Amino acid sequence: MGDSNQNDIPSHHGVGETGTIAYPNETIRLLLERSTCRSFTDRKVPPEILRQVLEAGDHAATGGNLQPYSIIKVENAETRKKLAEWNSQDFIATAPVNLMFCLDWRRLQRWAELEDAPFTATASFRHFWISFQDCIIAAQNICTAADAMDLGSVYIGTVTESIRKTCELLELPQGVFPVVLLCIGYPKRRPAPRKKLGVDTIVHNEKYHELPDDELLRAFDRKYPDLKVEPTDERLDDISRVCRKVHSQGLATRCIEKIRRRGYISPVQRYFGLHYTADLMPERNTGYLKIMEERGFTWFKEYSSAGEGTE
Amino acid sequence: MGDSNQNDIPSHHGVGETGTIAYPNETIRLLLERSTCRSFTDRKVPPEILRQVLEAGDHAATGGNLQPYSIIKVENAETRKKLAEWNSQDFIATAPVNLMFCLDWRRLQRWAELEDAPFTATASFRHFWISFQDCIIAAQNICTAADAMDLGSVYIGTVTESIRKTCELLELPQGVFPVVLLCIGYPKRRPAPRKKLGVDTIVHNEKYHELPDDELLRAFDRKYPDLKVEPTDERLDDISRVCRKVHSQGLATRCIEKIRRRGYISPVQRYFGLHYTADLMPERNTGYLKIMEERGFTWFKEYSSAGEGTE
Repeated sequence: MGDSNQNDIPSHHGVGETGTIAYPNETIRLLLERSTCRSFTDRKVPPEILRQVLEAGDHAATGGNLQPYSIIKVENAETRKKLAEWNSQDFIATAPVNLMFCLDWRRLQRWAELEDAPFTATASFRHFWISFQDCIIAAQNICTAADAMDLGSVYIGTVTESIRKTCELLELPQGVFPVVLLCIGYPKRRPAPRKKLGVDTIVHNEKYHELPDDELLRAFDRKYPDLKVEPTDERLDDISRVCRKVHSQGLATRCIEKIRRRGYISPVQRYFGLHYTADLMPERNTGYLKIMEERGFTWFKEYSSAGEGTE
Repeated sequence: MGDSNQNDIPSHHGVGETGTIAYPNETIRLLLERSTCRSFTDRKVPPEILRQVLEAGDHAATGGNLQPYSIIKVENAETRKKLAEWNSQDFIATAPVNLMFCLDWRRLQRWAELEDAPFTATASFRHFWISFQDCIIAAQNICTAADAMDLGSVYIGTVTESIRKTCELLELPQGVFPVVLLCIGYPKRRPAPRKKLGVDTIVHNEKYHELPDDELLRAFDRKYPDLKVEPTDERLDDISRVCRKVHSQGLATRCIEKIRRRGYISPVQRYFGLHYTADLMPERNTGYLKIMEERGFTWFKEYSSAGEGTE
């Protein structure tokens, strides 16, 4: 955007500026200073506070005002422990409240059945696309409301890794599919906001604008100035193997040469070579669709109607 | 929830209560009194205000802090007119700012290429699932920030209906896929918040709880007390046809009998029999996946790696 230099709000390219800025209002401050909390005190969330926070989800925008989602509110310690274990993140169990956001067409399907109305929404890509959005719009309103009530929160995106066990544990019926977990509690400490790419990189004026190579690299360098990892032999072996598996020996050679020359593993090499490893992340793609089908969603198939049949 | 009677915040089961409630803070008030705006004044959104609003998207939570989304900011009148036409909603063109939220793995792919890192994210269901969430989390923060700056907004979920034309118009490259449009401007009037199902219906304690039939019907009756449609011959023919096409003659008979006995078309009969018609909504499911593939996303296939090849 052309007006980037008239910006009075920190983009957190310089983290640490927070607290000294005159924000236009409290909501803008909350949104710009928000950071993910992974460390919670023992303090329970009082039911009346939690209810106010959940109301923000109930009042969220939703296509056709249909609200095709449900939230499983988990406070039971055993259940939280299992979710923590299955998602390999201990702090899930220490958050007093775990909220599992689910697509839910089951409720609307039952309504349709009780009222003798036709129903195909679980078989529709369009409905899936919008109900996924509706679910996250509600989740994010709850997340913002939690911040406004001095709570901290963290999204757990790995719930797709253990869908079958999760569905059994939470007794999710057909037509209900877990999307994301949000853990809420009183923060032990509030980390500083993370650095971001900045509005000038993520917002495009009128049409998509390809940043020139050097500007693109500068944007990422500003965002991840410290995310350089030491090139141990084991890490180099891992990255080399991933490069070969998903692309070629040529990429592996160039990657390792670049690391040796610089003396560090760069953020993007770490991201896709060591952390979200590029060879493992696409595993079981069709397996996930199969699980969706088991849960009653079939939008990835051509729909074949019952036709003008008789009962 | 068991504590439902200790609730001091309106659930908008009684719309009209707003403005008289003591909210714990301004952000909670904004979230609970928000309503979708479809009528905008001519007033432009000042660039410094718009930038503050967009900053709220840049600072949103995002998996691994990867920010795999882009926002195309459209203020050009001709472009807005086309988006209005393709989405069959005139008010899109009257909103001075149209924001098209897109999944964007293109930027990260370019970064990986420039840095010699392996990359497969566009081929990964897991990455797709989380980046879709990230995109909507950013959109909803922008939506809330707009409310906080006295703007109004409306989500347009039908952008999947005209993807190819939209991609061409906004010059979206491979790896970029439009998800949802958010229109922003100064409201001509603010509609009252819509009635909602209520926290006791959408939130489940510990495990999924099936409401008994009568409670389920009461929840929907409270939500849609006025959404009863006159049963004209044309409407009855339409609903009957949809029932036969997606299910059977038996359903069509029961549906029409129920309508005649009551004297009105019920909300769910209207929703899936006349509005989001159950026969047409699942159309082109596999067509949408084909378009995703054209745009560079292939997570609905088994991934086949390049293997340990040479270049």
